Amino acid sequence: MSLLFKHLRIHQIFGANTDVGKTILTTALVRRSAAFKNEVFYLKPISTGPIEDADDEHIKRHCGALKNRVHTDCLYRFHVPVSPHLAARLAAGEGSQKVISDSTFVNSIASYVRRCASRGTDPAHMYIETAGGVHSPTLSGVTQVDCYRPLFLPTILVGDSRLGGISATISAYESLLLRGYVVDAVLLFRDEYYRNSEFLTPYFAERGIDVTAVDPPPPIPADPLEKIASTERYYERLVSEDTILPVLRTLDTRHERRLAELESMPRRSLDAFWWPFVQHGLVKGEKDVTVIDSASSDFFSVYDAQGAEGASALESQLDGSASWWTQALGHAHPTLTLAAARASGRYGHVIFPQATHAPALQLAERLLHDGPGKGWASRVFFSDDGSTGMEVALKMALRAFSTRERLEGTDRKALGVLGLRGSYHGDTIGAMDACAEEGVYTCEWHNAKGYWFDPPTVSIQDGHPVITLPPALVAAAAPSDCAVASESLSSVYDVAGRLSTPLAKVYRTYIGNTLQSLERAGGLRLAALVLEPLVMGAGGMIFVDPLFQRVLVDVVRERGPAPPPSTDSDAPAPWRGLPVIFDEVFVGLYRLGMQSTIPLLGVAPDISVHAKILTGGLVPLAATLASDSIFRAFYGTEKAEALLHGHSYTAHPLGCEVANETLRLVEKESRSEAWAAAQARWEIAPGTPGWVWSLWDPQFVWTVSRMDAVTEVMALGTVLAIKVKDSEAGYVSHSAQTLLQSIKFRDTGSESGLFSVHFRTLGNVAYFMTSLNTAPETIRSLEDKIWKALQKSS
Amino acid sequence: MSLLFKHLRIHQIFGANTDVGKTILTTALVRRSAAFKNEVFYLKPISTGPIEDADDEHIKRHCGALKNRVHTDCLYRFHVPVSPHLAARLAAGEGSQKVISDSTFVNSIASYVRRCASRGTDPAHMYIETAGGVHSPTLSGVTQVDCYRPLFLPTILVGDSRLGGISATISAYESLLLRGYVVDAVLLFRDEYYRNSEFLTPYFAERGIDVTAVDPPPPIPADPLEKIASTERYYERLVSEDTILPVLRTLDTRHERRLAELESMPRRSLDAFWWPFVQHGLVKGEKDVTVIDSASSDFFSVYDAQGAEGASALESQLDGSASWWTQALGHAHPTLTLAAARASGRYGHVIFPQATHAPALQLAERLLHDGPGKGWASRVFFSDDGSTGMEVALKMALRAFSTRERLEGTDRKALGVLGLRGSYHGDTIGAMDACAEEGVYTCEWHNAKGYWFDPPTVSIQDGHPVITLPPALVAAAAPSDCAVASESLSSVYDVAGRLSTPLAKVYRTYIGNTLQSLERAGGLRLAALVLEPLVMGAGGMIFVDPLFQRVLVDVVRERGPAPPPSTDSDAPAPWRGLPVIFDEVFVGLYRLGMQSTIPLLGVAPDISVHAKILTGGLVPLAATLASDSIFRAFYGTEKAEALLHGHSYTAHPLGCEVANETLRLVEKESRSEAWAAAQARWEIAPGTPGWVWSLWDPQFVWTVSRMDAVTEVMALGTVLAIKVKDSEAGYVSHSAQTLLQSIKFRDTGSESGLFSVHFRTLGNVAYFMTSLNTAPETIRSLEDKIWKALQKSS
Repeated sequence: MSLLFKHLRIHQIFGANTDVGKTILTTALVRRSAAFKNEVFYLKPISTGPIEDADDEHIKRHCGALKNRVHTDCLYRFHVPVSPHLAARLAAGEGSQKVISDSTFVNSIASYVRRCASRGTDPAHMYIETAGGVHSPTLSGVTQVDCYRPLFLPTILVGDSRLGGISATISAYESLLLRGYVVDAVLLFRDEYYRNSEFLTPYFAERGIDVTAVDPPPPIPADPLEKIASTERYYERLVSEDTILPVLRTLDTRHERRLAELESMPRRSLDAFWWPFVQHGLVKGEKDVTVIDSASSDFFSVYDAQGAEGASALESQLDGSASWWTQALGHAHPTLTLAAARASGRYGHVIFPQATHAPALQLAERLLHDGPGKGWASRVFFSDDGSTGMEVALKMALRAFSTRERLEGTDRKALGVLGLRGSYHGDTIGAMDACAEEGVYTCEWHNAKGYWFDPPTVSIQDGHPVITLPPALVAAAAPSDCAVASESLSSVYDVAGRLSTPLAKVYRTYIGNTLQSLERAGGLRLAALVLEPLVMGAGGMIFVDPLFQRVLVDVVRERGPAPPPSTDSDAPAPWRGLPVIFDEVFVGLYRLGMQSTIPLLGVAPDISVHAKILTGGLVPLAATLASDSIFRAFYGTEKAEALLHGHSYTAHPLGCEVANETLRLVEKESRSEAWAAAQARWEIAPGTPGWVWSLWDPQFVWTVSRMDAVTEVMALGTVLAIKVKDSEAGYVSHSAQTLLQSIKFRDTGSESGLFSVHFRTLGNVAYFMTSLNTAPETIRSLEDKIWKALQKSS
Repeated sequence: MSLLFKHLRIHQIFGANTDVGKTILTTALVRRSAAFKNEVFYLKPISTGPIEDADDEHIKRHCGALKNRVHTDCLYRFHVPVSPHLAARLAAGEGSQKVISDSTFVNSIASYVRRCASRGTDPAHMYIETAGGVHSPTLSGVTQVDCYRPLFLPTILVGDSRLGGISATISAYESLLLRGYVVDAVLLFRDEYYRNSEFLTPYFAERGIDVTAVDPPPPIPADPLEKIASTERYYERLVSEDTILPVLRTLDTRHERRLAELESMPRRSLDAFWWPFVQHGLVKGEKDVTVIDSASSDFFSVYDAQGAEGASALESQLDGSASWWTQALGHAHPTLTLAAARASGRYGHVIFPQATHAPALQLAERLLHDGPGKGWASRVFFSDDGSTGMEVALKMALRAFSTRERLEGTDRKALGVLGLRGSYHGDTIGAMDACAEEGVYTCEWHNAKGYWFDPPTVSIQDGHPVITLPPALVAAAAPSDCAVASESLSSVYDVAGRLSTPLAKVYRTYIGNTLQSLERAGGLRLAALVLEPLVMGAGGMIFVDPLFQRVLVDVVRERGPAPPPSTDSDAPAPWRGLPVIFDEVFVGLYRLGMQSTIPLLGVAPDISVHAKILTGGLVPLAATLASDSIFRAFYGTEKAEALLHGHSYTAHPLGCEVANETLRLVEKESRSEAWAAAQARWEIAPGTPGWVWSLWDPQFVWTVSRMDAVTEVMALGTVLAIKVKDSEAGYVSHSAQTLLQSIKFRDTGSESGLFSVHFRTLGNVAYFMTSLNTAPETIRSLEDKIWKALQKSS
C-alpha cells in the first residue's frame, strides 16, 4: 500500500534515537513548507503521554502565522507516558490480545494520507513523525522500521548530535537500509563540542545523502509564557535563515526525481531489456511494462501512469504468480534480509571445492537429515538454479548408468531418459534434452533424448474429482477397470490404498509393455527416469495421477537386476533399474503443502533437485541430492572420473544462510494456526497426515469447477490452476489471460482490498500461487476477485 | 588475522551507545573470571581523556582481591577527551596524514593477543573493550565495526537501558550483524521504569542470544574515597550474586561449542558434501578439508586442527584463486553487504518478464552505455551464471544464423560453432557442446559441435616475450614470416599495429584456407564464432595471441555477405558472416586490468557474456549482451519465436544492486593510486592507454620466467600464470600443486606476513589471482613466497 502523489510530497521522520529533536526539526520543516504557500499536513500516528506535551500540539502551537494552511492530526493517542506497545496493552487491558494489529495501524495511516491527498491537487507537503528511535516498538510490539515498511515512504533521518551520536545515527541508518528505505535527508542539531555533523557530512555524502546541521533551540526558560515566546523566536530565526530552505528544496527535488524516474522507466526498460520468455513484438508499449517500485509481503508496489488526477501514482498489486513460483514468505522478509546480510558480512563468497563453511554445511545436513533427503540421500551438490541442478542430476544419473552397464564411447552418447509428456526441467540445453521436443521449448540445439509417456491427470470438473486417461491408456483398459470419477480427492492421493486397484494393474501392464517394445525397437537406450512429482508446472500445471508415477517408479525398478545384497542393513538401497530423478524444484518444500512428495508417493528417488522456495524467494541457489550408490559411481582415484561440474558461486554463503533461515521459517509456517485452519477446511483432522489440502478454500475451488467458463480446476497447497474453455489450447493461447484480465484492475473499497492482481497464464490455464504465509484475508479477497471475473465471462 | 585459542577465551565488548555501562559490566566480568582461578586479560585498545578516568584504570582499581591474576593494558592512549579520530589527528598534528592505519591498529591488537595467549596454556579469559558505540570512529576515522572486523572476535553487546534504548540496542545489533559478527551475549542494566530488558529478552531469544539484565551501580557519592568503597561494594554484590556467573558460563559454553563445531566440520563435510570438480577418492581425510570460519579482504580465516599447543586455532590464508576468479573487492566488503541488504529490504525478489525495477534497469543501462556493451550492444538478458549466460548467447547466435539462412528442421540441429582449442564456457551441456571434447570436460551427453583452431599463444620464457605457434601454423608460415620472439609484451598486444605484419597475413591465409576446406568437406555448418578474448582460463590459463583472435573475427566477418545498407548511419553494424560471441565471464570487468577486451582487439562482438566480477564476488548473476541485429532475429508477433529462456530468479534485485555497487567501485579502483603505481612499473605513462600491465611486479614476473623450475610465465591485470616443468601435462597433472605446496604453510615473522596461501592449479599451470584492490604489500609478500617456493624446487 505504498503511496506516492504528484501534488503531495510526503516524508516520514525517523529518529536516530529518542530526544534527538525530531519534533523541533519537523516543526521547522512544517513552518517552512507553509511559507511556500502550500497546504501542509502533519501526522503523528501514535502519541503517548499527556496531550499538552504531545508533538502534534507543539506543531499546532508553533506552526507560525500561516497556521490555517497547517493540518495536524494524531491517530492513536494514549495518555500514559510509556512506550506505545505498553500503552496499547494497558489500554486494552493487561494480557489482552485485542491490541491493534500492524495491518490495521498501517491501513489507517494509508487511509488518512489518501484523505489528505484528495483535498485538492495544489502542491502540498506532508510529514509523518514516528515515535522514539527507528526500532522503537509500535502498538503491536513490532518495531517501527518493520511496521511502517508496507507504506514505503521516503524518509528523513534525524541524527543524534550528542556524545555517541555518530554511532547511533549510522546504526539507525543501517536499520532503515536493511528494510530498503530511501533516506532523502539527514538533519541534526549543531553541537560545537562533539561536532558529529562534521563526521557525518562526508560519511553520508558518499552515500548520496545531504546532512544539514541546524542550530539547537536555546535553553528553555522556566516561565511558561516566556518559554513559548522564546521557542517562537527560535523557529522564526530558523525559518528566516537559510538552513531549512535548502532541505526543503532537496526534498522537493527528490520527490520530483522519484516521479520522473518512475515515469521514464517503462520507456528505458523497453529500450534496454531483453526479457525472458517475452515476445517483444507483442509488447504494445509503455503501458505493458510493470514498474515495480518496491515490494512487501504478497504485494508489489507498482507505478500507475494512467491514474486519476490526485490519485496515488503507486498502487498495490498482488503477486499472484509468487514471482515465478519463488515466493514462500513474502517479499522483503526482514529475517531473510538479515540472514543474507549476516552471511555476506561474515564471508562474502568463499571457494567451495574441498572447503567448508557453516552455512553450506548446515544446509546440507538439514536437507539430508530433516529435509527432502531424509532416509535415502547421502550427498548434496550445490549449483545455481533449478536448470543447473537438473543438469547435475542428469550427469549423475547418466554416469551411474553407463558405469554399471560398462558403456564406452558413442554408446554413452546414445542414452536417453524416460519421463512424462509435458515435463519441463529448465532452459539450459541439457535440461531441455530431457524433455520432449514439442510446442515452443525448442532451440536449434534442443535434441530430445528419451521417451515420454502421456500421463493420466487429476482435476476437479463440475464439482467432481476426475482422473483423465490419455487415449493410449483408455485403449489399454477395460472401461470397468478404471474408476475415472473418483469419490474424493483424498482417495485419489491415497497412493498406497490404490496400489491394488484395477487401475494400478492397467498402469503397470501398460508401462511394462511400452518399455518392452521400446527395448525391442532398439536405438534408444533409457538411462534414467526423470519426474516432476505430482505436478508438471511449466507444462501447464498438469496434475499427474500420483498412482501412475508410483507405478512407473516401481516398474522401472523391478525391471532392473536385483542389486547385490548389502552388508549394512541400515544403508539405503542402491539404485536399481534406472536411476530415478525427482525434479522437486517447483513442487517441493511446501509449495504443494508438503515438505516433499516422497511420503505421498511412497517411494524415494535416487537423485532429487531443489531450488525456488529453497532460498525463500530471494536469491538463486539449487541443491541436487544423491544417494550413496549414485555418489559411488564417481568415486575413484582418477580426477577425470569425478563429477566435473561447478559454478563460480557454488554454495555461496549468502544463499546457503538464506536457505537455512527459510527452511526454519517454512517448517514453522507448516505448523501455524493458519495452516491448521486451512487443513481443517479440507477436512484434515489436526495431527493426522493428509496430503489433499490447500490454502485455497475448498468451497471456492468446487464452485469455480462448476462455472461455465471453466473446464477444470485443481488446487494443492499454495497452487490453484484453472483451465478455461478455449478453442485454441497450449502454451501460445492467450485465452486465460483475456478471460481474467479484469482482475488486473484495482478494486475500490476498503484500504486492505485496494489492490490489482498480477497473474500469469500458461495458454488456457490461469494459475494463482500464494506464499506459504499469505494472510487468509488476502486469499479470500483474491478468490472473490477471481470468482467475479469468471462470472463476468460466463 | 582472526584469532581463536583453545585455552584463551576472548570476547570483545561493543556498546549500543556511549555511556551504557560497558566498563562497569566488563569489570564485573573480569572480577568473576578471576574468581574462576583464571588468568584474565583486559585490553582497551584506545583510550582518550585523562588517565585517572581511563577504563583500564577503573578495571585495575576494581578487579577485586585476585588482582594478581588480572592484566590490564591500553595500546593507544590520548589525553585529550575527544573521539579517537580527533585525538589521533590532534596528536599527529592537524591535517597530518600520519594517522595510524587500520591495519597497523588491528595488527597491534593481534600481536598483543598472541603475546597474552603465549604466556601459558592454562585456561584464561580476555576482554577487549571498544570505545563508544559500535559505529564510533577509530583512529583512522573508519568506524569500529569495520575496523575491528578482520579480528572477527566473538562479541558481547552491552545494551542501552535508557529511554530509547530498545531501538539503540537493536540497531547496534544489526550493524554488528551486517559485518557478520557473532554476538554471544547481550548485557544491560536493569531499569524498572523503561523495562527495556523485558522487550529485548524475547527479541534476542528468538535470535538465539541470552539477554542479562544487571542491577545498575548506586548513585556516585561525592567523596572520592566513599566513591571507591561504594563501587567496590557494588561489584562485590554483583559478583557474589548469581547474575554474572550464568553469563560467564554462557560465554565459556559458546567458546567450547565454537571449537567443537570447527573441529567437527571436516568430518561432517566429508560426509555430506559432493564437491564440484573434486575426486572424493583423492581426498585423504579431514586434513584435506579447508574449514573457512570467516573471510575478510583477501584472506580466509581457516581452522588449523594441527596447530601447536597454545597457537591460534584460526589462521589467515590468502585467497590466491580469488575464490574461483570471483573476488574483485575482497571478501565481505561492507559496501556490497549494504547494497545486498538495501535491495533485499526494498524488493526481495520480484518477477521480471515485462516488468522492471531500478536495480536491473540501472545495471542494464550501465552495461550498455558505460560498460562492455558501449557502442555496439542494445540489449541485456539476465541469467544466473556464466554457463547459463553462455547458453543464452548460443541460443541467440544459433537462432540469428538459422533465421538468416532460413534453416528448418534437422538442418537447424546440425549447426556448430567455430572456436579455439582449450575453450571453456561452463558446465551446462549446451555450454560444453560449444567446446571440443577432450581431456576431462565430458559427460555422457557432451556432444561437441564445431571446429576449434589450435591457437598461437603468448608467454614470457626465460626473460623474453614469445609467441608460440601451433604445428599447423608453423607449417603454413615461412620461418621469416613470423617474428616469434617479440621485442616487448606491449608490442605483442598492439593489435592495430600488428595487423599489417607478415604474421597477420599468415594467420589470415591459414584461417581462410581452413574455413574453406571445412565448407568443402560439408556436414558441419558453422553458425557462430565463440571466443574467450585474450585468455582461455579453465583451459589452462592460455594467453592467446590477440592478433590471431582479431584476424579470426575479421576473416569470419569478411566471408559473410555484406549486410544491406542501413538507413540509420548511427546504428551499429548488423552482424555479418557469423554472430561473434565474446565470453568475457573470466577476462572482463578488469580481471585483466581492462574493463573490456574490445578496445584492445579493436573489434566488438555481436553478443557478449559477463558474470563473476559482475557481482563483486558475492552472489551469482550473469548478463548476456546483444546487438540490435541479434535481438531482431527473435522479434515478431509469435510468442514461439521469442527467446524462450528464463530462470526463476532472473534479474534478482539483490544481485543487480550488488552489481551496480561493484561496477561503481571497480571503476573507482581503476583510477586509484595503487593502479597508477602498478601501471607506472609496467612503464605505462599516466593518462595514456596501455593494455600490458599487471598488479604483479614486472621484475618479479621476469625473474620467475628465468627460473629452472619454470617453463613459462604470463601476467595481465590481476592474473599470474606459471607453467612448471613437468613430464605429465594437462588438467590431471598434479605437478604445479606439488611444486608450490610449501606456500600452503604459514610464515612466521611480522603479524602482517603471518599467512598461508590457498591457490589452485590447472595441471602443470599454477595461477594466482588477486582482487582489484589487494594491497600492494600483500602482493609483494605473496611474490616473495612464490619465489622462495620455486627456488626450493629449482
